[in-house]
Amino acid sequence: MAELRNLSRSECEALLRRGEVGRVALATPTGPHIVPVNYTVSRGDVVVATAPYSVLGSSGRDTLLAFEVDHVEHAQQRGWSVVVRGRAEMVEDPEEVRTLGRLLPRPWASGTRTLYLRIPLDEVSGRRLGGGWDLEATMPQRPTT
Amino acid sequence: MAELRNLSRSECEALLRRGEVGRVALATPTGPHIVPVNYTVSRGDVVVATAPYSVLGSSGRDTLLAFEVDHVEHAQQRGWSVVVRGRAEMVEDPEEVRTLGRLLPRPWASGTRTLYLRIPLDEVSGRRLGGGWDLEATMPQRPTT
Repeated sequence: MAELRNLSRSECEALLRRGEVGRVALATPTGPHIVPVNYTVSRGDVVVATAPYSVLGSSGRDTLLAFEVDHVEHAQQRGWSVVVRGRAEMVEDPEEVRTLGRLLPRPWASGTRTLYLRIPLDEVSGRRLGGGWDLEATMPQRPTT
Repeated sequence: MAELRNLSRSECEALLRRGEVGRVALATPTGPHIVPVNYTVSRGDVVVATAPYSVLGSSGRDTLLAFEVDHVEHAQQRGWSVVVRGRAEMVEDPEEVRTLGRLLPRPWASGTRTLYLRIPLDEVSGRRLGGGWDLEATMPQRPTT
């Protein structure tokens, strides 16, 4: 059985900055939901892109959300996962919205309009499975704001 | 921008049967949470492995859960995601527990004891991003019960 250990806050933040796709868990009137999202790290927070009338756009503002990004290599029995939890707010600053429009791909959000939700790193946790390898080497570096 | 389209129920089920790692979203007393899990398909339901005293083991029984599995290829701008939602119950049948113990890896569940949660496919949805490629070829086939 591969070793499972907790990641430090700085390890978690370094991995967060390298990802592009994660998943958001949210409470909805019909129970928990989970949706894949494109994201980036902007001004120190996770920012996810969604459509205004999606499940996330409708039920994910001004409420607690959980966000997860991971990388798993089945054959090598190794991987890592980082989870962020915090109260999400819509990005309102026009300058930041313009920057996000350039930086943040949003293929998982259908429709032509984009809503950006900011999830502060109120709670950050991470785990890695398997030792002796460079976590960050598993993800391509991407520009962040 | 790559094409985003919905998957049929049978496409979703075929993809579910090939995965090994997914994520579960659940409601907890402190808000939504999301945890990576090893899973299999057993008797037509998604069954995830967790530890009895984990967040999922504590707050994930006899309640609504959402489960997601996906495969994303950044460079090709293509991928798919399948989401299952249903009321989870602990697997109680001793024979099924023994079978799951043989079939289901559980490296993401720490500790020595395993709790199996069954999530019925009450609601199944999926989306694919990008066309012209074989979705199932993205995952290795694995045995299921």
